[in-house]
Amino acid sequence: MKALEDKILKEGTVLPGHVLKVASFLNHQLDVDFIMEMGREIGRLFRDCGATKILTVETSGIPIAFAAGAAMHLPVVFAKKHKSSNLSGEVYSTVVHSYTHGVDYTVVVNKDFLKADEKILIVDDFLANGKALLGLIDIVKQAGAEVVGCSCAIEKGFQKGGDQLREAGIRVESLAIVESMTSDSLTFRRV
Amino acid sequence: MKALEDKILKEGTVLPGHVLKVASFLNHQLDVDFIMEMGREIGRLFRDCGATKILTVETSGIPIAFAAGAAMHLPVVFAKKHKSSNLSGEVYSTVVHSYTHGVDYTVVVNKDFLKADEKILIVDDFLANGKALLGLIDIVKQAGAEVVGCSCAIEKGFQKGGDQLREAGIRVESLAIVESMTSDSLTFRRV
Repeated sequence: MKALEDKILKEGTVLPGHVLKVASFLNHQLDVDFIMEMGREIGRLFRDCGATKILTVETSGIPIAFAAGAAMHLPVVFAKKHKSSNLSGEVYSTVVHSYTHGVDYTVVVNKDFLKADEKILIVDDFLANGKALLGLIDIVKQAGAEVVGCSCAIEKGFQKGGDQLREAGIRVESLAIVESMTSDSLTFRRV
Repeated sequence: MKALEDKILKEGTVLPGHVLKVASFLNHQLDVDFIMEMGREIGRLFRDCGATKILTVETSGIPIAFAAGAAMHLPVVFAKKHKSSNLSGEVYSTVVHSYTHGVDYTVVVNKDFLKADEKILIVDDFLANGKALLGLIDIVKQAGAEVVGCSCAIEKGFQKGGDQLREAGIRVESLAIVESMTSDSLTFRRV
């Protein structure tokens, strides 16, 4: 998505540790009109996938998943990063390692909100090593539901998580794939 | 908003400790089309307020704030509940007590995303004792910006936080105000 690549080049900054900071429009301040446009692009890419629901993980996956839900008129479920006192009943859970924060965290989804007959589109803001998506895929499998695809706003192509998922037969569509980045330059993959 | 009152009566459940659980549509599973409708109602209520930006707090404030931003074509900033390693630079911060979780937490907003000339509409999912909104108002004041109003999806009228803010001269519009609730019955305030 050319408009997203342009926005990353204009507003993104590269920090040490392969961190691409896009807090001005995607994960602290939200450029709502632009994220809605990204949601419509996800809707276009997956218009024939038969998804019945979108799954993401809090916090920064919520805006892009919500925008995709608005475009596709689908409900969104966001997995929670720890068992909240407000979550009663049984949950599906899995453990995800965050390289950004250097910790493991537990991700949970209430069993009421994922059923065996559902077709799930997984949406997130970033795709790097793929651990968050693998955790969400694991949760969908626990529910006996089907993953129809994954879509992320920004994929770090050099970290290979997206390519590994594609090699495993999962449809992965990222709106921009960063092929290399340093504090001085940033290039995108041409697909 | 009659449609929201109906939805609360149909899908909400009251748990011990004055917890109103609306996880099926507002804060775990998101009924996106319905939340977009709530966002349009906030846009209608505040159409002449001159807001330049919407402020909310992660996590469950994000969907309703995002929907209001979509209706009003305004950016959204969500305050973060602790200092993330991805937040560089200076931040505005305040401490908020959560009665639901029984803890104090620090809320931060990067100074880049709140400027002195801005008019801020604060949006959140729940308004009970008002501590979260007071924290966000404090952050807006630290920035030297102006609060043009607050809008919440569901106000617990019996917990008085909303009324105290109104008495302090702040415009507060809630889409539904629960006047009383038990496990058997739930009544709304007529305004």
